[in-house]
Amino acid sequence: MQAIDFYFDFASPYSYFMSEKIDALAAAHGRSVTWRPILLFAALRALGLPAPMEHPVKRDYMTADFARSARFLGVDYRLPAAFPALTQHAARAFYVLNDKAPAVAVGFAQTALRGYFRQGRDISDIDVITDMVCAQTDVLGPAATVREHLRTDAAKALLQNANTEAVNRKVFGSPFVLVDGEPFFGVDRLPQITARLVENRSNP
Amino acid sequence: MQAIDFYFDFASPYSYFMSEKIDALAAAHGRSVTWRPILLFAALRALGLPAPMEHPVKRDYMTADFARSARFLGVDYRLPAAFPALTQHAARAFYVLNDKAPAVAVGFAQTALRGYFRQGRDISDIDVITDMVCAQTDVLGPAATVREHLRTDAAKALLQNANTEAVNRKVFGSPFVLVDGEPFFGVDRLPQITARLVENRSNP
Repeated sequence: MQAIDFYFDFASPYSYFMSEKIDALAAAHGRSVTWRPILLFAALRALGLPAPMEHPVKRDYMTADFARSARFLGVDYRLPAAFPALTQHAARAFYVLNDKAPAVAVGFAQTALRGYFRQGRDISDIDVITDMVCAQTDVLGPAATVREHLRTDAAKALLQNANTEAVNRKVFGSPFVLVDGEPFFGVDRLPQITARLVENRSNP
Repeated sequence: MQAIDFYFDFASPYSYFMSEKIDALAAAHGRSVTWRPILLFAALRALGLPAPMEHPVKRDYMTADFARSARFLGVDYRLPAAFPALTQHAARAFYVLNDKAPAVAVGFAQTALRGYFRQGRDISDIDVITDMVCAQTDVLGPAATVREHLRTDAAKALLQNANTEAVNRKVFGSPFVLVDGEPFFGVDRLPQITARLVENRSNP
């Protein structure tokens, strides 16, 4: 059966919640998950959509809703002091790893998401990301080499390609999950994703 | 225990889905529901928020999501030909009824929502709303008198007051539910509303 595509931006709390659920859910229905970090703002710009509003009324609601949803979903969460974060270093690191050592790329992504949304580590900082890569694997070499890797045109191109692919697939939010090509936006769609996995298993 | 406040715009499919669920859910937890139709666009403007985007990428997703969510929630639904609708006549009719015959106001609201989202009746049309009021009750008199009622300054003021109250409570979407003052935006929050009703019942 086809892998589930999981698009996300590392700075999105709802995406972090999804990241804690999607692998086990997929596995329970005989599926794997293809993790695809993106830069949401760049994707929105390319789609001609405005960036999510930073209006106080919505921000207050969402800040409370992040914490409430985390409790509801049983996910360990704390709003990071440095929120939101810039996520190009994290996303590039993911694709560099995915290219050279795919087995550890998802582990790195989980380390980065948990480091940010549990311990408040500042994933905007290339040194923090470098540390996280080194804690995960030595396949890219020592810290200085990892840092260089993240700044290469090759690393930038890998992320750019992923973002272009996301735009082509009309990924307009984060998290954004595709099940057999059908789009589901938001962690709120977990129950409907579950229903669809059951349905598509019976009627492939 | 305090009534649950249910804010909605008559043109919102997700609000229609909520309207089919909220009374029974509240009753199961010993609560009543105060229905509060509003004009969402006016509330957003007053809050300084943009109207929900009519971008093709999002519209296509949402059109599919309306139908998928209706099936998931077990609600009878068909996208009306005249979508979206202007909802001032429906909302004014609700408040006029609520003022003179509160017992039938919610019944009228259900008639209007079902008429629109099941049979595709055009609720933008004052004559359609008048018919719906007359089918519900004769307390406002015959059709010609109902139609006059809906155009009075008193009817407009009732709706305006409800909208102002919604703005003061930072109602920035539809459906928008308040449980003991705590805001829940969207029909996707039904599971979390249920959890909170259980919790607040144990710890009032």
